[in-house]
Amino acid sequence: MELSKNVPLVFLFILFLFHAWLVLGERSSYFVHMDKSFMPKAFASHIHWYSYTVNSLRSVSPKSHQKPLRLVYTYDNVFHGFILKKLPGFVSAYSDRSVTLDTTHTFEFLSLNPVTGLWPASVYGKDVIVGVIDTGVWPESRSFNDDGMTDVPARWKGICEAGQDFNSSLCNKKLIGVRYFNKGVIAANPNATLSMNSGRDTVGHGTHTSSTAAGNYVEDASFFGYASGTARGIAPRARVAMYKVIWDEGSYASDVLAGMDQAVADGVDIISISMGFDGVPLYEDPIAIASFGAMEKGVLVSSSAGNEFDIGSLHNGIPWVLTFAAGSIDRFFAGTITLGNGLTITGWTMFPAPAFVFELPLIYNKTFSSCDSNETLSTIGYGIIICENGSVFNQMHYISESNANVAIFISDDPMIFVFSYSTYPGVVISPEEAPILIDYAIKDVNPIASIKFQQTLLGSKPAPVVASYTSRGPAPSYPGILKPDVMAPGSLVLASWIPNDITAFIGSNIALTSDFVAISGTSMACPHASGIAALLRGAHPEWSPAAIRSAMITTANPLDNTQNYIRDSYFNYEIATPLAMGAGQVDPNQASDPGLIYDASPQDYVNLLCSTNFTQNQIATITRSSYKCSNPSSDLNYPSFIAFYTNGTTSTMIQKFQRTVTIVGDYATSYKVQVTAPSGSRVSVYPSTLTFGQKYEKQSYSLTIQYSGSKTGAITFGSIIWVEDNGNHTVRSPIVVSPMIPVW
Amino acid sequence: MELSKNVPLVFLFILFLFHAWLVLGERSSYFVHMDKSFMPKAFASHIHWYSYTVNSLRSVSPKSHQKPLRLVYTYDNVFHGFILKKLPGFVSAYSDRSVTLDTTHTFEFLSLNPVTGLWPASVYGKDVIVGVIDTGVWPESRSFNDDGMTDVPARWKGICEAGQDFNSSLCNKKLIGVRYFNKGVIAANPNATLSMNSGRDTVGHGTHTSSTAAGNYVEDASFFGYASGTARGIAPRARVAMYKVIWDEGSYASDVLAGMDQAVADGVDIISISMGFDGVPLYEDPIAIASFGAMEKGVLVSSSAGNEFDIGSLHNGIPWVLTFAAGSIDRFFAGTITLGNGLTITGWTMFPAPAFVFELPLIYNKTFSSCDSNETLSTIGYGIIICENGSVFNQMHYISESNANVAIFISDDPMIFVFSYSTYPGVVISPEEAPILIDYAIKDVNPIASIKFQQTLLGSKPAPVVASYTSRGPAPSYPGILKPDVMAPGSLVLASWIPNDITAFIGSNIALTSDFVAISGTSMACPHASGIAALLRGAHPEWSPAAIRSAMITTANPLDNTQNYIRDSYFNYEIATPLAMGAGQVDPNQASDPGLIYDASPQDYVNLLCSTNFTQNQIATITRSSYKCSNPSSDLNYPSFIAFYTNGTTSTMIQKFQRTVTIVGDYATSYKVQVTAPSGSRVSVYPSTLTFGQKYEKQSYSLTIQYSGSKTGAITFGSIIWVEDNGNHTVRSPIVVSPMIPVW
Repeated sequence: MELSKNVPLVFLFILFLFHAWLVLGERSSYFVHMDKSFMPKAFASHIHWYSYTVNSLRSVSPKSHQKPLRLVYTYDNVFHGFILKKLPGFVSAYSDRSVTLDTTHTFEFLSLNPVTGLWPASVYGKDVIVGVIDTGVWPESRSFNDDGMTDVPARWKGICEAGQDFNSSLCNKKLIGVRYFNKGVIAANPNATLSMNSGRDTVGHGTHTSSTAAGNYVEDASFFGYASGTARGIAPRARVAMYKVIWDEGSYASDVLAGMDQAVADGVDIISISMGFDGVPLYEDPIAIASFGAMEKGVLVSSSAGNEFDIGSLHNGIPWVLTFAAGSIDRFFAGTITLGNGLTITGWTMFPAPAFVFELPLIYNKTFSSCDSNETLSTIGYGIIICENGSVFNQMHYISESNANVAIFISDDPMIFVFSYSTYPGVVISPEEAPILIDYAIKDVNPIASIKFQQTLLGSKPAPVVASYTSRGPAPSYPGILKPDVMAPGSLVLASWIPNDITAFIGSNIALTSDFVAISGTSMACPHASGIAALLRGAHPEWSPAAIRSAMITTANPLDNTQNYIRDSYFNYEIATPLAMGAGQVDPNQASDPGLIYDASPQDYVNLLCSTNFTQNQIATITRSSYKCSNPSSDLNYPSFIAFYTNGTTSTMIQKFQRTVTIVGDYATSYKVQVTAPSGSRVSVYPSTLTFGQKYEKQSYSLTIQYSGSKTGAITFGSIIWVEDNGNHTVRSPIVVSPMIPVW
Repeated sequence: MELSKNVPLVFLFILFLFHAWLVLGERSSYFVHMDKSFMPKAFASHIHWYSYTVNSLRSVSPKSHQKPLRLVYTYDNVFHGFILKKLPGFVSAYSDRSVTLDTTHTFEFLSLNPVTGLWPASVYGKDVIVGVIDTGVWPESRSFNDDGMTDVPARWKGICEAGQDFNSSLCNKKLIGVRYFNKGVIAANPNATLSMNSGRDTVGHGTHTSSTAAGNYVEDASFFGYASGTARGIAPRARVAMYKVIWDEGSYASDVLAGMDQAVADGVDIISISMGFDGVPLYEDPIAIASFGAMEKGVLVSSSAGNEFDIGSLHNGIPWVLTFAAGSIDRFFAGTITLGNGLTITGWTMFPAPAFVFELPLIYNKTFSSCDSNETLSTIGYGIIICENGSVFNQMHYISESNANVAIFISDDPMIFVFSYSTYPGVVISPEEAPILIDYAIKDVNPIASIKFQQTLLGSKPAPVVASYTSRGPAPSYPGILKPDVMAPGSLVLASWIPNDITAFIGSNIALTSDFVAISGTSMACPHASGIAALLRGAHPEWSPAAIRSAMITTANPLDNTQNYIRDSYFNYEIATPLAMGAGQVDPNQASDPGLIYDASPQDYVNLLCSTNFTQNQIATITRSSYKCSNPSSDLNYPSFIAFYTNGTTSTMIQKFQRTVTIVGDYATSYKVQVTAPSGSRVSVYPSTLTFGQKYEKQSYSLTIQYSGSKTGAITFGSIIWVEDNGNHTVRSPIVVSPMIPVW
């Protein structure tokens, strides 16, 4: 099964998009998969071919004046940014989705600290093994040094597999295992020579995710001076084992399955998989299949929700895995503008050099301030041009072709650099700050300004905000379980990267590399979750995968750092629904002491599968063993609730859930329920008090949703919170009422 | 007395020359001093004025095709690179000289180490105070953090003088004092407003020199990725006191004198002064005058020889100071070229970014390989162009205006980046490596190459080599004492810089800053000497300034790291004469245990002055006190020998010297003489054995040079070595026979 052709929405790594001009609508860019075998021999490399193709189309595109075309990113799996359906070599096009990272600050943002909570409780994840299923690893990355690591646990059965440019001595006490799985890719491409037939990462993605989850301490990490500091993984004393299953020549379900299987066999405690398969039912999804076996053996699989933006686009909606959404961090990358009159304005920038803009003329002129025409811009001289009232993406492009060497853009999108940053000194300021700038530029006889780059500001508010790109539930692979589960930092996350890849540009010709990059996506949120899961495993080795997940869900924080409900940047900064962020922002220290947990056994998942309309064979594909459908039930003991109505109907929708909670605290106590019903719903819970006599005692309750609200697409949400009488614990579950979506 | 006008060759700080196109001859560039009061009001800043001036001249210059003109550097004291004598604002022109730095590696190159020798013996210079006479200091520089420093010595009488952008709390246990001296500059410019009326450095030079001498440890210092490592001063536990005497508005002898006087009054142990006055006799040289007083109070003044290249151009040829020449380091800044056939070539580069040049077409074509014509270069496309057979300075310029975005230059000058580096990815390779490159480029159907930048290679040989720019003796201010005294690292020295200055360019528009820079000059050698002097003062508090100097001279190493005599890069890599490097490369550990010293008292220097034809008033200007010329003698007890002949004469020249050495070892011993006579000379020494009974015992000897060699300009040299019978110490003095030079 060749995923890249048969599965239309294969997982994508959308790296930072240097020159991202998102075409075909304001928000969406289209990625085109080119078949390298069609490449004319005249081109020295695929990069040249893509560049040429984009350039030639730019000149013929009737829309090129409004929407200039640019090569968005080059990758051996080849995507660039616009429709190429009629070109030879075209395979398929996908709508835009993006993936990102952060380690020098997210641990702080998540309140991890050496004094109290999960870090000391877990000894920083000591001896927990995180298996990462990804593109391989760059073993020489500073994140994989083993300073301060103790001997590899004796139970570890993995190996350091030798291969191309990779000898088996490259593993150490931090990177304890590397394997690669190429049988699928070779079977599908019998005549191809793998460009890197070993566990070595040729993409960067696997190096980034694995260093995010469990990278060692690295002093003076930064992305061209931004986010500088001491980088570290979320579980800095956990071990990393890499399973390379993604190849420059393609990605195959058989390799993914083999990698996950081996990881379990080798003895990993957590599997981190920042990828997903779109458009496939559970019984065709290799991650769903492999993770079932992992779950049976007590291994938690932590996955990413995807970067598809829209409601119902979420992948990895698998009842027995942990599925993470991505949010922002309270950090931004800044430049400070100092005007000739002494006033200063702070803006957003990621210009990748310590540029020195000192007392240059400030140019503001209504004739060309929209910065969208080469003709008018051709008249401007050396200086700092002010651009307003337009798409910053477009303006960036036009300025890059003008004489202006510095630009100030006015835009209210603080996350613009998640997708793009300028190749010359450029700063984006908010419309609120613009009048100060423009007033000075107009009224001063000789307006000048200076700009400082490479600043990193923390504590920005509100944060977190749900990332625009994060795929929203309900899960089309299994809508009955509310997904995503929780949110973690995913935007502009700093972690290690491969050193032989272009990570930024200066001007049109000068490409740059960096051993750390700040990128964005649910791929970056997932390893945060994996690292936290590793810490929880270290602190609570007796917890099942479902218990770890439950602890993360019921302690997640629905509030941001302004103590208001977390907002969603994709939906006009309205209050985010659990379909965007699950229960909220993960809170690792709280998750270590959840009070109650919602547990689930392998049989519970079998019962759920038995309740579906899957065939016996389809179910057996997942369970991979004999099972009995003696007690089919879709009412899994999950720490969240989702009920569906059918659009256009009028009758009241009623759904009843049964739940059992286990006390993990050490004393007798009782909990009382607090319900916040979704708008248009009545939610009843019975009993309303749960009393526990001793640790591990279980109590059950039922929850009924009666929804009589609008049935024309409204998504409503609320929560149930079990509050301990002494106030020590609050155990919160989100409740969603949603219209039914199409199922894969 | 306004030095910048009345003294034609005022000291210059020639910073790294980004775009240095040296005009008017292959080797020399001319610096033009512009008077800012002539600046037309239309220009926003002096930088714009200079740029405009250079650009307009470029278009009219008949020679512009051979020798393109570029603004070499901007500085508030304003120099750029070509003749502007007819322009309004022209003040004076100087021939090129340059100043440079290195701290992350020179301590190793000088064999300083924490285990044995001068570092532990002096506790890293603990409590020794180095007063730096310079352009001020950037107190926030990481080099002036006081981590690990003990309390300021109670004897310290200095202050932290408040001023513009400088409050008195900016000093600490490392930077223990800052003062500024502006009365001279204000008197000469009564209507001017000082641009920075405080000890704050607006140039960078003082921050660099002071951090080189005694900067604290700074992790992850680098110059755009080159020379990266933990920076530290030569005496990392010594204290720094800055005396700012150089102003954007001019430099005045009265301020220099005042600064040096105050430094002595405040209680500094060493004065470091990386500047010098050219063309002035000793009694008009403020450094000569002030350093006499310092010497009287036991303060050693360490100075730089200047950057004038030529024989007889040396400044600070002052008998009572230490005068340092500059040499290279065994380090180069590299790029590795990997050809499509797998072969690699290492070249020189300082391109200031982590550029990623990956499998680009390699372009070699005899039609344009001289890279000296915009016309032929206009035909080339995107790729790596090979340039040969021409001035790399010129070629760099033409390539910057072409479509080629990467260039490989072929040149045998390893020090090209001392003066210039490219503003796009460029690498210089040696002619020996060129055939591999060109052969591949010609014979391969589709030649490609990749280049890696930001590499730092150590252990290059031979090293040290005398820097081309270092000013050579004899000293025109007083030829009778052999100067320079010793050589220290001066080329591409890394140390701190001010953060608000342009330190590199990418392309024509993007200026960069850096808090550390690698620059070159005797200004960078001098603070190495000052740091070593501080260590010697710490290890031997009882030694006089003359004793410290003697120890450095008699233990200096005339050999390079190939165990051959040190060579001179300015004179075709011939064996360097003592007129270029003094006794050789300074060896701090050996200097700490010299065996014998040649001491001198204040009266000895008076006797020397009395032997000159200076008037009583002139001598009193220097000694600043009553003195008696009871025993005039030019035969100062100096640890080196220089004898002069008159060009064109035929008679044998005979000169006799008398010397007294003091044993500083702790036991009775004897030394035997070894003489290597200069070619054409007989050197006789009497007695040939010196026997010492106890520490501090003195013995005298006489040395006679009879020169009957060619008297038509030949400079010949040899040495006398006193070798201890047990082999523990060798006490070496250089001997030079030279034609007499014109005296200032």
